[in-house]
Amino acid sequence: MLRAAVPGRCIEFFFDVGSPYSYLAATQMERVGARAGLPVRWRPFLLGGVFRATGNEMPARVPAKARYMIDDLTRWARHYGVPLRIPSRFPVVTLRPQRALVHVETTAPHALATAAMELFRAYWAEDLDPTSDAVLARAADVAGLPRDELLAAIEAQPVKDALRATTEEAVARGAFGAPTMFVGDAMFWGNDRLELLVESVRAS
Amino acid sequence: MLRAAVPGRCIEFFFDVGSPYSYLAATQMERVGARAGLPVRWRPFLLGGVFRATGNEMPARVPAKARYMIDDLTRWARHYGVPLRIPSRFPVVTLRPQRALVHVETTAPHALATAAMELFRAYWAEDLDPTSDAVLARAADVAGLPRDELLAAIEAQPVKDALRATTEEAVARGAFGAPTMFVGDAMFWGNDRLELLVESVRAS
Repeated sequence: MLRAAVPGRCIEFFFDVGSPYSYLAATQMERVGARAGLPVRWRPFLLGGVFRATGNEMPARVPAKARYMIDDLTRWARHYGVPLRIPSRFPVVTLRPQRALVHVETTAPHALATAAMELFRAYWAEDLDPTSDAVLARAADVAGLPRDELLAAIEAQPVKDALRATTEEAVARGAFGAPTMFVGDAMFWGNDRLELLVESVRAS
Repeated sequence: MLRAAVPGRCIEFFFDVGSPYSYLAATQMERVGARAGLPVRWRPFLLGGVFRATGNEMPARVPAKARYMIDDLTRWARHYGVPLRIPSRFPVVTLRPQRALVHVETTAPHALATAAMELFRAYWAEDLDPTSDAVLARAADVAGLPRDELLAAIEAQPVKDALRATTEEAVARGAFGAPTMFVGDAMFWGNDRLELLVESVRAS
């Protein structure tokens, strides 16, 4: 069921560790890339910035939707066979973890997916605070980066600017939520569209 | 892959002919029922009433989401192999078709799915106005009901009351959008959750 990689194409995966559906998608991206025959490029962006720019809002704003989301997330986690624990603090402002991942992207790009998964798991499976120094230090460790360097990078202007630029790029290309995947110009929103993404790549 | 029907259980399918994702789900309900081993009970409700009651809003309110929806609907239609043509008038106030379907539900329940599909196809595949007398007359025809009777029923108080009651019931049970499916207390929102619905029934 695997396809040979097509040169020059990839799946761009825009995600925010504060987004539960980003977590669910993240657990599947390796498999999705293999099925589509495309490499996956992980792209940390800031979902809060996307909401502000587009006028979209988090689904939990509607109380009935927030209640449903817990069942829905639980079902997806069971479907994928991945751990999920609804965090005791939600939502969180994800500026710090997303900037940390931008720094990993710049300095140790090969470790970006691993570092992102470390933060995703801490928040969505272990109910830890992904904005805390302790959790961010774990991301540094798995990325093989000095902890002090990663924590300092969070306050560095180029890192702030890069996160903002990626967020603005996603919005300019049509994104309004997370996760958002692109294959060239074709945009897919939500872990629930990963199968349509694979189908679309295979048909093209 | 079929399962024997479980007595006393069914899939309740709350839908509005004005909702594109309700249309997509409607095209799949026979197959979904067969795979889940459950009969499907079609339940016309008023999505506008659900939005008013829950504070939810139609996705097309966010311009970026509206643009994406056209691609998304097209992909689902291709995935299911069903016709889809984005209507030239959208959204429409669906009081008339939904009330007409309530009348069919009351007087010719065996024909409800057929009449609903006639209205869905008129709007989502033929770009016709599902609120027009001409299209409603087609629903009467396929349901084997006199056209005049169906058109008169739209203004009848018991029909108005029944549509309102069904809408309020759905909201009271947790619905905030369309389509919404229930299997007992378990609620599923969107055509994109039909596979999780089948999975959930099979696991129970």
